Amino acid sequence: MTLTQFNLWIAEIRNDRTRGASELARRSLELLAEAARSLPATDAVELRERLLALAVALSAARPSMTPIQNLLRRWRETLQSSAAPNLAGARCLAAEQAELLMAASRRAVAECAAHTAELLGPGRTVLTHSLSSTVVEACRLLKDTGLRMIITESRPLGEGRQLAERLSAWNVPTTYITDAQMGLFVAQVDAVLVGADSVLADGTVINKAGTYPLALAARDQGVPFYVCCERFKWRALDDPPPELEEMAPAELDTPNWPGVTVRNVYFDLTPARLVSAWIAETGVRWPDVGP
Amino acid sequence: MTLTQFNLWIAEIRNDRTRGASELARRSLELLAEAARSLPATDAVELRERLLALAVALSAARPSMTPIQNLLRRWRETLQSSAAPNLAGARCLAAEQAELLMAASRRAVAECAAHTAELLGPGRTVLTHSLSSTVVEACRLLKDTGLRMIITESRPLGEGRQLAERLSAWNVPTTYITDAQMGLFVAQVDAVLVGADSVLADGTVINKAGTYPLALAARDQGVPFYVCCERFKWRALDDPPPELEEMAPAELDTPNWPGVTVRNVYFDLTPARLVSAWIAETGVRWPDVGP
Repeated sequence: MTLTQFNLWIAEIRNDRTRGASELARRSLELLAEAARSLPATDAVELRERLLALAVALSAARPSMTPIQNLLRRWRETLQSSAAPNLAGARCLAAEQAELLMAASRRAVAECAAHTAELLGPGRTVLTHSLSSTVVEACRLLKDTGLRMIITESRPLGEGRQLAERLSAWNVPTTYITDAQMGLFVAQVDAVLVGADSVLADGTVINKAGTYPLALAARDQGVPFYVCCERFKWRALDDPPPELEEMAPAELDTPNWPGVTVRNVYFDLTPARLVSAWIAETGVRWPDVGP
Repeated sequence: MTLTQFNLWIAEIRNDRTRGASELARRSLELLAEAARSLPATDAVELRERLLALAVALSAARPSMTPIQNLLRRWRETLQSSAAPNLAGARCLAAEQAELLMAASRRAVAECAAHTAELLGPGRTVLTHSLSSTVVEACRLLKDTGLRMIITESRPLGEGRQLAERLSAWNVPTTYITDAQMGLFVAQVDAVLVGADSVLADGTVINKAGTYPLALAARDQGVPFYVCCERFKWRALDDPPPELEEMAPAELDTPNWPGVTVRNVYFDLTPARLVSAWIAETGVRWPDVGP
């Protein structure tokens, strides 16, 4: 592989609008494993330096996506702390570490979904917004237990359509609504369940725009609001809040009105006070109750 | 005119997705004035009976739209309480009454917009959802005072596009967002201002779906949430709550997924406790403060 090839991969990660943060983090690790195996280098030290630089460039491609930051930082740490005897050994070690982290990420999603399914229990009606692979996996686990779903289209790109397709294939009775109808339908459900692109150390949830008003409506209607995501999505106390990525206004498909600015911020922040529980691979975390 | 013609007009009112409730109420009165002038009848009594039946049919075409109910009821009452000497006189009287009510409705909208502009004041940044002719008129009054607008696209039909066009023509600096971004942008404005399709006697606002989560976000961010609409949109204490109209799922333009029901409810209910003030042609009404 060449640096040109790797730059194309970075562009692939940067422009991906269909895969969630966890999937893109695993894809990034896959690309780093491939780079570890085939990037030109004269010795182990040069290889490590070049791989570290690639990992930094990949991380920067999606600044809002904490799992990419966390998993790639973890990978860089293992690279820095390990000493391979030679170039071949260094290639093997770096690729293997990337694959171990991919497996850990997959396992975390599966365990997180299992805890989510257990918390929800059978026969529930659940509303979700946008598309989270952890929510999809929880739906798969519950699909034969009488689960009913209400899902939003999730403008501008309509990730809800992919979810509708999946739920339809699993015969889960599903209601599909515009984002604007969320307040109307939240009163009809047993729980709201969303994934997260990232969670701040204080429990603030960064997820697809629309999550915050949905959480407000859930609270107002007395409906529990659950957030399920693996620990790789949690940011450390000293991490700065991630930038809220803004995508091309063209995704809204509007004419060009002079003086009108079209905004397309993908994420909003839901304060921890609106979250009924956070579900991770380690289990369910309920809000701290004050003294 | 013939009954067939009139039935086409009823269908026009029923299928209109671009004009708001006040405009459609005036259009209904215009149709009734036309019917008063030209509907076949042998005498004044027969004419009155036929006109009353037409007014009832027109009212039923848009059950969620209170101004249609209120203005047409008012018109029916004047018909029932007035006695014309002959058929020609009855035609003239009925048409004239319809035109007087149209003028009263127009005046109410203009006065309501004037109170709204006065309450907002110059130099404000205001967020609105969907398209209200009263909000548009308030924007026109404020357009040269440093007004800035943030507007939502308003799925499924995108009424926000018409508003964007209008504001662009008036050189009002405008930000256009998806409905899902409302929670993100509400923190940036001085006030949220919406019209209403109807207001219940207790102050509950029936407006385009998405208004309720927007009101929640405004409250959560400490931003005033104003509702401007003329008194013809207020329902009496003994009126039953209007049906929330649901439109064709085809408007969401989805594939046909087996087991997936597409819902397209146009309106939601915003409880009075989330409203900072209701603005009508009679002035500004603040919430009652308890003892």
